[in-house]
Parts: sequence; C-alpha cells; structure tokens
Amino acid sequence: MAVIRHHVEARYSDTAIHNGTVYLAGQIAEDATQDITGQTREVLGHIDRLLAEANSDKSQLLMVQIFISDLANFAAMNAVWDAWVVPGHTPPRATVEAKLADPKLLVEIVVTAAQKS
Amino acid sequence: MAVIRHHVEARYSDTAIHNGTVYLAGQIAEDATQDITGQTREVLGHIDRLLAEANSDKSQLLMVQIFISDLANFAAMNAVWDAWVVPGHTPPRATVEAKLADPKLLVEIVVTAAQKS
Amino acid sequence: MAVIRHHVEARYSDTAIHNGTVYLAGQIAEDATQDITGQTREVLGHIDRLLAEANSDKSQLLMVQIFISDLANFAAMNAVWDAWVVPGHTPPRATVEAKLADPKLLVEIVVTAAQKS
Repeated sequence: MAVIRHHVEARYSDTAIHNGTVYLAGQIAEDATQDITGQTREVLGHIDRLLAEANSDKSQLLMVQIFISDLANFAAMNAVWDAWVVPGHTPPRATVEAKLADPKLLVEIVVTAAQKS
Repeated sequence: MAVIRHHVEARYSDTAIHNGTVYLAGQIAEDATQDITGQTREVLGHIDRLLAEANSDKSQLLMVQIFISDLANFAAMNAVWDAWVVPGHTPPRATVEAKLADPKLLVEIVVTAAQKS
Repeated sequence: MAVIRHHVEARYSDTAIHNGTVYLAGQIAEDATQDITGQTREVLGHIDRLLAEANSDKSQLLMVQIFISDLANFAAMNAVWDAWVVPGHTPPRATVEAKLADPKLLVEIVVTAAQKS
C-alpha cells in the first residue's frame, strides 16, 4: 500500500495512487489565452493522459470537483464536459465559482478515479 | 473493485461506490426558494437517502465539504447541521464561501462516506 | 473497516480513518492575528500532528486542497509550503481563492493521506 506518484515536481505532483484509487492535482490549461471551450478541452485532455498513465480512464471517475472563475461560462464548460463523459459512467460532480491562481485561468478540475482491475 | 453508480444521468451521477467508499455529487436543494434552514434540511435529507441506498449512513461520514453562498448564513446552516450529525461520529469538515451554479442556491454539500460492513 | 475518529467534537472531528486512508478536517490557524506566513506554518503544524496521530505523515499525502482568502498571499503561502513538503513525495494539490469562516483567516488546508504500512 505504498503511495505511487507521477510527475513529481518540487511543489506538487500530478498523480498519487494508493489502494486502487487515483488522485490528480487540480488540472488547468497551460495555454490560458484560450476561451472556456479551449481551456476545458485542454484540461480534460490532461486528465485523460494522467488517468491512462495510472491504469485508469474517464469511465472510472469517482468524484469530480470543478472550480470555474465565472459562472457565466458554466454552459460552455458543460457543453465540452457533456461530450467528454462516458454515457452510463458519469461521475458525481460538484461545481462552484472560485478565483484561480492566474486571473486568465477560467476552469480548474480536480479528479479522483478508480484504477482498472 | 468495479465502480458502482446510482442515479446515473447524462451529465453526472449522484453516487459512486468503490472499495468500500461512497462518493456523492454535491447536493443542492431542488426547491431553491427556501431559506438557508430549509435548503440545508433538504440537502441533508438527500444525503441521508443516497447514503442509505449505498449501504451507508451519516454515522459513516469520512469527509464533508460545505460550500455556502454567503457566510452570513453560516450560523443558521450550522444549527441544522448540529441537529443532524450523530454524536460521537461527527466527520471532518471544511466550509468555505463560494457562488453556486444557481444564484438562489445557498448551500451545496459534498460528502464522502464509508459503507457499513 | 470501521471508521476511526480522533478529536471528536459536537460539530465535527479532526480526523477520520478508513481502509488505510486518513481524512482531515480543513485546518485553520487558531491565532488568526498572524500573517499568511504564520498562519500557513501553524496550519501545516496542525496537519503534521494530526497525521502522526493517525500513523501517517506528510510524505504520505494523497491530495491537498488549499483555500486562500486572497490570492495576493499565494506566493508567501507557497514559500512556507515549499519548505514543508518532502522532496520526491509532493502531493497532488489544488488552490483556489475563497472566503473563510472568519474574515481574519487567510488560509485553510484540507488533506487526505495514506497510513504508513
């Protein structure tokens, strides 16, 4: 039951795996000049890649916390989300408005998922 | 260790169960015309029902995140909370102010719990 | 797989342990007159103590959620954080701005960790 980590940096790591559960750091867009559609797509792409490295995928999501900098972008974020999730395997989710570390960032998504067996 | 889900909708599901742990979506009041007392009561009622369906209950809570739209409602929310929790089995909790998806929503509660053995 | 709790109060407890995972309540400074450096140090000290009581420590962190009342304090909070984390064992982390229960509180940190084997 050791903790396995991926992409370990000095301040944080992107992934921790313990006891069959995968914890990801809050994912943000590297290109913060994008609009909400582009940022959400980039964020979900990061999540896909990190989950794949952890022997998981978006059908295995356990909980998703979404922080959005302006609820005016809620519908556009949801449009990208709705096209991304796996029908029949959508996860519990909570979305609230919060200012993010960089004022250009529009969305940050925090994911917990199960490893595939 | 498959993920079991309840109340699966196109955008999200209310419950995911994995490895003995129950994850619930952020619960909000369906009747958002209620005051903080009424909304908190309705939210905790949703949580009771969802946990029961998942072979858990409020004595098994592992972590609770409360988002409140206005900290002026903190005391009134706590009054409902204090009457609801099980003495000797209160969970870790964090409460912060955040705007919720609908401006009439006053409180959203996110719960993780253990299944009963 | 019973839930073990530490520091159980009427409203919440500081620690819940289940299935090898430790969940802590959002930790805040008791001395809220301190600046962000002092508050962050006090909060991380609380986390160290609570994790030790739960047979865990900061090298075992699985996920950390930081709520900061003013992002102007982000760099000063990070300076304390960077000195505290264990190189090679940094956890996934997400930081957003949110008003905390007391306006003098500058930072609240929510931690999930693995027990040591």
